[in-house]
Amino acid sequence: MTPRIRQYGPVVHVIDITDPADTRLDDFRDLNSSDRRPDLPEGKGLVIAEGVLVAQRLLASRFDPIALLGVDRRLEELADDLDGVDVPFYRTTADVMAEVVGFHLNRGVLAAARRPAPLELADVLEHSQTVAVLEGVNDHENLGSMFRNAAGLGVDAVVFGKGCADPLYRRAVRVSMGHVLRVPFAHVTKWPHDLEALRERGFQLISLTPNPEAVTLAEAMTGEKVALLLGAEGPGLTEHAMRATDIRARIPMAPGTDSLNVATAAAMAFYERVRTGR
Amino acid sequence: MTPRIRQYGPVVHVIDITDPADTRLDDFRDLNSSDRRPDLPEGKGLVIAEGVLVAQRLLASRFDPIALLGVDRRLEELADDLDGVDVPFYRTTADVMAEVVGFHLNRGVLAAARRPAPLELADVLEHSQTVAVLEGVNDHENLGSMFRNAAGLGVDAVVFGKGCADPLYRRAVRVSMGHVLRVPFAHVTKWPHDLEALRERGFQLISLTPNPEAVTLAEAMTGEKVALLLGAEGPGLTEHAMRATDIRARIPMAPGTDSLNVATAAAMAFYERVRTGR
Repeated sequence: MTPRIRQYGPVVHVIDITDPADTRLDDFRDLNSSDRRPDLPEGKGLVIAEGVLVAQRLLASRFDPIALLGVDRRLEELADDLDGVDVPFYRTTADVMAEVVGFHLNRGVLAAARRPAPLELADVLEHSQTVAVLEGVNDHENLGSMFRNAAGLGVDAVVFGKGCADPLYRRAVRVSMGHVLRVPFAHVTKWPHDLEALRERGFQLISLTPNPEAVTLAEAMTGEKVALLLGAEGPGLTEHAMRATDIRARIPMAPGTDSLNVATAAAMAFYERVRTGR
Repeated sequence: MTPRIRQYGPVVHVIDITDPADTRLDDFRDLNSSDRRPDLPEGKGLVIAEGVLVAQRLLASRFDPIALLGVDRRLEELADDLDGVDVPFYRTTADVMAEVVGFHLNRGVLAAARRPAPLELADVLEHSQTVAVLEGVNDHENLGSMFRNAAGLGVDAVVFGKGCADPLYRRAVRVSMGHVLRVPFAHVTKWPHDLEALRERGFQLISLTPNPEAVTLAEAMTGEKVALLLGAEGPGLTEHAMRATDIRARIPMAPGTDSLNVATAAAMAFYERVRTGR
C-alpha cells in the first residue's frame, strides 16, 4: 500500500534504509547514551520522542523535528501528522532499528528534534493561573510523571529552580507521555530570589512540606493565582526556598509512614487546585 | 566491632559465607527469575525484602523471615530489629552478594520470607473504614506505588478483584517500600459478585472512571465507610464491575489529555478521603 503522504504537496521525505551503519541515522544511534552530545550546544542531546503518541505530540509542539526513524506501519499511522512536515522519515525494519538504537524498541518509531531556545519566565507566567515550581527534583522519571500530571490536571506551566534534572532527557520525555513538549517551562536564574517575579504577578507562593505543623493544602490554597513549590523526595524544599514563599502547606498523611513520591504529592496539590475550581 | 546482637539470648545466627556457590544461599539466587519457584506452593517465589528499611518492615510484619543475606554493616544497622529473630543471617561481601543474586545490589541486605496463608476478606474488612478495590491492575510497579500511597494516606486495606498481578512480587515489594507487607490485603473469589460482602458491611462502593459525565470524586464520596474501585490504566474498570457499585466518580481532568496513571488516580481518591476527615 502506498502511504497517502506520498501523494500530496511539500511533505516528509520517505527514505528507505537497509544498512544500520548508514550515517544518516547517526542522530538515532546508541540512544542509551544519546543524552550527552558534546557536538551540540551545552553538550545536551536531541529531544527524542518514542512511539506514535509522543511523536504526534512532538510534531504538534514548539519543537522542530529534524528526522524520524521507523517502520512502515508507523509511517502510515503518522501520515496525517506528517502532512506538511518537511523532514526525512527513515523507513526501515524493526531489526535495523534495534541495531541502530542499541536495544529493541517495541514502539516502532522515533522522532528527533533540536532543542529550541529556552522560554522566558515572564512568557510562561503571562497567562498562567497555576504553576509548579521545582527545586532539586533530579530524577527524570519523577519529572516526567510530574509533567504528565500537570497536563492532566490543568497546570499551566512548570518553573525550574535550582538543582533539577533536564526535563528533555529521553526518559523524562517518555514517562511524561510527551507532555514535557506541551506544558511550557522556564528556568529561574537567581534562586530563590527570582520567585519575586511570581509574587509581582500576583501568585500566591505555597511550599509543600511533610511538616505536620504546617496547615493543610486545602486551607493554604486561597490565591487566584497559585505557585506550588515542590522539593525532591527525601530532602524536600530547602529552608531557603521555603522562606521565600507565603505559606507552608502539608498533605495530610498517616503518621509513621514515609513521605510520598514527589510526583504523587504534586498530583495531589494539582488535584486540590482543580477540585476548588482553580 | 562485635555486633550487639551476638551478646544476647535467642537471636539471629550470623553465618559467614565466602563461596557464592554455597547452597545455603539458594533462596537468594538469581533474583531476577526468583519470582517463579516451581518447588514452592502455587509456584510463587519467596517474599524478598531489599534494603534496611524494607527488611525492617518485613521483620515487623506478619511475614515470617526464613533468612537474611547481607554485608556486615547492614547486619549492624538491623541489630535491634533482629533481636529475638531466630533465623540465619548470611554475612558476606558485596561481591559475593552480587554473584549470588545475579546483579549488583547496592542496598547491601536482603530478607526472605515464606508466603503466609492469605488473609480472609472478612478479616481485612473488619475494622476498615477505607479500602481500595482493584480490578485488572497487572503492573507490579503500579501495585507497589498504590500500596505506598495507601499506607501514606491511611487506607486500611486493599481488596483484589479479577486480573491483578501478585503484590508480593519482588518489584512490587520494593516500589511499595515494604508497605505491601503492612497494609492488609485479601482476594475476592467471585468477581464482582462478592462485592456484596462490602455492601453488607456498610461500605459505599465507588467506581473511579475518566468518564466526564460522572460526578466528581468530591461529590460522590459521602459514605462513612468507603470502597474505592480502580481499574487498570487504559481499559479502566469493566462495565460489569462498575454496575456492581453504588456510584461512578471522576477525577476532574483537563480536556484532551490522557487518563492518569492508576496509582496517581488512586492517590487522589485516597487524598480526597483524608481531606474530608475520612
